[in-house]
Amino acid sequence: MRQLFELCGEDRDICFSPYVWRTRMMLLHKGLEFERVPLWFLEKEPLAPANSKTVPVLNDNGTWVMDSFKIARYLDETYPEKPLFGSETALNQAAVLNTWTTKNILMPIFPMLVADIHAVLDAENAAYFRKSREGFLGKTLEEAQSPRDEMLPKFGKSLQDLRTILQETPYLSGQAPAWFDYAVFGTLMWPRVISNFEILAEDDVLYAWREKMLDLFDGHARKAKLAY
Amino acid sequence: MRQLFELCGEDRDICFSPYVWRTRMMLLHKGLEFERVPLWFLEKEPLAPANSKTVPVLNDNGTWVMDSFKIARYLDETYPEKPLFGSETALNQAAVLNTWTTKNILMPIFPMLVADIHAVLDAENAAYFRKSREGFLGKTLEEAQSPRDEMLPKFGKSLQDLRTILQETPYLSGQAPAWFDYAVFGTLMWPRVISNFEILAEDDVLYAWREKMLDLFDGHARKAKLAY
Repeated sequence: MRQLFELCGEDRDICFSPYVWRTRMMLLHKGLEFERVPLWFLEKEPLAPANSKTVPVLNDNGTWVMDSFKIARYLDETYPEKPLFGSETALNQAAVLNTWTTKNILMPIFPMLVADIHAVLDAENAAYFRKSREGFLGKTLEEAQSPRDEMLPKFGKSLQDLRTILQETPYLSGQAPAWFDYAVFGTLMWPRVISNFEILAEDDVLYAWREKMLDLFDGHARKAKLAY
Repeated sequence: MRQLFELCGEDRDICFSPYVWRTRMMLLHKGLEFERVPLWFLEKEPLAPANSKTVPVLNDNGTWVMDSFKIARYLDETYPEKPLFGSETALNQAAVLNTWTTKNILMPIFPMLVADIHAVLDAENAAYFRKSREGFLGKTLEEAQSPRDEMLPKFGKSLQDLRTILQETPYLSGQAPAWFDYAVFGTLMWPRVISNFEILAEDDVLYAWREKMLDLFDGHARKAKLAY
């Protein structure tokens, strides 16, 4: 039995965690079947066997692995076919790019959709989310999100190196999608599922790349239930 | 004839450009002979055939290439043996890591040694350097450099992912040094050549790694002339 523990809204079909989306795409890349276990923010008990308080958590027939990067490494070690990294060099470099993706994509996106995340939660989880995130942001969720139009240009600039790559190869990892594609794309599924606020322009090469990623695995990500 | 155009102090044996050091190490990695052409900041004429105003510039038998990352790619395309990148995935990822290295290593180091750079230049180049860099920094070189002890902890933290890598493999690129090692190490040769201010602690795994890098190619980098 293979289970992927996910984060969900009040509607358990609204799966929006950027790190879970990375992992989901990597499991699909490997061609591994899995059962989704969608959890609310406050449902921590099912993650205890992995000694984790955050998703994603993978239960692979009794082997529990937490953290999307550790899961990616585990998958390549355990199921070497269809590698996610492809070489030790690429794996080593990915350790830096994993943090890069968080700092340059996830963190800048966060304030742009933080009130929209709140809106998909039930009352109890919404209260928890508001209290913890407003403490982190130092302002209300609505204050944080309202200037999102003005945040887009700086965010767009931080993606410039990705565009440079896509001018030469169809995917971030080269001729075919692999770890870096799923790391970036998974992060972009977060705003896509949660919010109708579009963070990429239609003429952006990243927009076209995201379309291709949405089509992978029989359009798996394109079929994701949206919150709006 | 193969020429590498470098940046130097009044003493033309003091070669300190971080980007030049990357390139020098990559040429050694490839086992390619080259003649060094050390230039002062204000000596731009020799770079004109490459349409460049900055070093490194490589003249490879009449093929002129500028920019350390472009030179790295050129070297792998032209001399495929002993690859610097090793795979298209690693090359694509390197495009992001190249900027990462500038932002997380080069830029934080810059204020820590900016007055020491000034000290190795002749009067005319020193005046140019002071004027342009003080404009960029918004303060005097001495004011920028003086709190360098306090800058070290934050700088050290930004290298954490590199330490994680080195806990598992001897080099940043894996079992043997390659592009990412030279990119980071070349940047660290800048403070080493210019300043007696030590930016790594002796018990830092990066310190031990740098020692190994200094030993490569018959201790080439270790033999570099120091400014102090």
